[in-house]
Amino acid sequence: MKKSLGAKTLVFPTPVLVVCTYDKAGKANAMTAAWGGICCSSPPCVSISLREATYTYGNLMLKKAFTISIPTERYVKEADYFGIATGRTEDKFKTTGLTPVRSDIVDAPYIKEFPVNLECKIVQVLNLGLHTLFVGEVLDAKVDNTLQEKAEQPIMEQIRPLVFGPGSANYYGIGEKLDKVFSVGRELK
Amino acid sequence: MKKSLGAKTLVFPTPVLVVCTYDKAGKANAMTAAWGGICCSSPPCVSISLREATYTYGNLMLKKAFTISIPTERYVKEADYFGIATGRTEDKFKTTGLTPVRSDIVDAPYIKEFPVNLECKIVQVLNLGLHTLFVGEVLDAKVDNTLQEKAEQPIMEQIRPLVFGPGSANYYGIGEKLDKVFSVGRELK
Repeated sequence: MKKSLGAKTLVFPTPVLVVCTYDKAGKANAMTAAWGGICCSSPPCVSISLREATYTYGNLMLKKAFTISIPTERYVKEADYFGIATGRTEDKFKTTGLTPVRSDIVDAPYIKEFPVNLECKIVQVLNLGLHTLFVGEVLDAKVDNTLQEKAEQPIMEQIRPLVFGPGSANYYGIGEKLDKVFSVGRELK
Repeated sequence: MKKSLGAKTLVFPTPVLVVCTYDKAGKANAMTAAWGGICCSSPPCVSISLREATYTYGNLMLKKAFTISIPTERYVKEADYFGIATGRTEDKFKTTGLTPVRSDIVDAPYIKEFPVNLECKIVQVLNLGLHTLFVGEVLDAKVDNTLQEKAEQPIMEQIRPLVFGPGSANYYGIGEKLDKVFSVGRELK
């Protein structure tokens, strides 16, 4: 039997994405967003949704560019801090000791210590209510050169990204490998 | 050191969402999408991106409604099948033995056996290229009445959702609990 919980965004899991931008003075900022993901394969696009009240919102509207850096289990404290503090009053890179690297493609920095970085130019802005959805076209993806690839993609187990769920009071890691994609379902065909 | 992998959508993790719709004859269909997530908290909205070539695309344009059902580790085979087969030629509910329940709120079915279901009406359609992004306002969230809640949200560990990564050849489960959200980062403030 089902019970109704009302109108709620219950998507499990959601990612933990660190969005980096420059402000008008050129200061690098980072914020954590769990409302976002991939939204188009060709051209390659990702979306992030954030509130107009955030410092990052103003930076996005000004620079029309952002990066996404994927935090790993090792950096859960820093990822959480990026979601708590505001760039209006704090220098988040100074506090965390993490390194902003200036992208040579878009007017935004990415985080050196995080193993996967996407450099994006904003191609769509959609005001939905409390949150505004920004679509960024990925112009380049940079990864640690220590990461191996399989089918030209980094391997999940080597990245060890964070997992989040709405209403969850915790971050999680990636769990055990289950079945193969586009494979196990063929047994039903 | 970083290396460039070119323009790619490397977001880790992505969710495994089963999108259900009715076709013009009223046949229930289900497809699996990993490009999607939460995009607004108020009004509560989720997005899914899919190719125009899918059978679901036509159903979405016709009915202006869909549901999202969250598959669990137990249903990895069915979730994979929903991503492989097409509703044009197959009755995916018949094949899997899963049960489509008619929503009493939107013109779409949801999957009885999956523990979390979101009933959505389409409020935005954004053609981005190969994929079109649909924003659905969540009108109700239904969950198994066996699920407990914490802060009015179901608990990740009880749901056991699937995790996917772009380019990954595998589905994963949710891993170990790490630190508390909006908490561990305060140590840095």
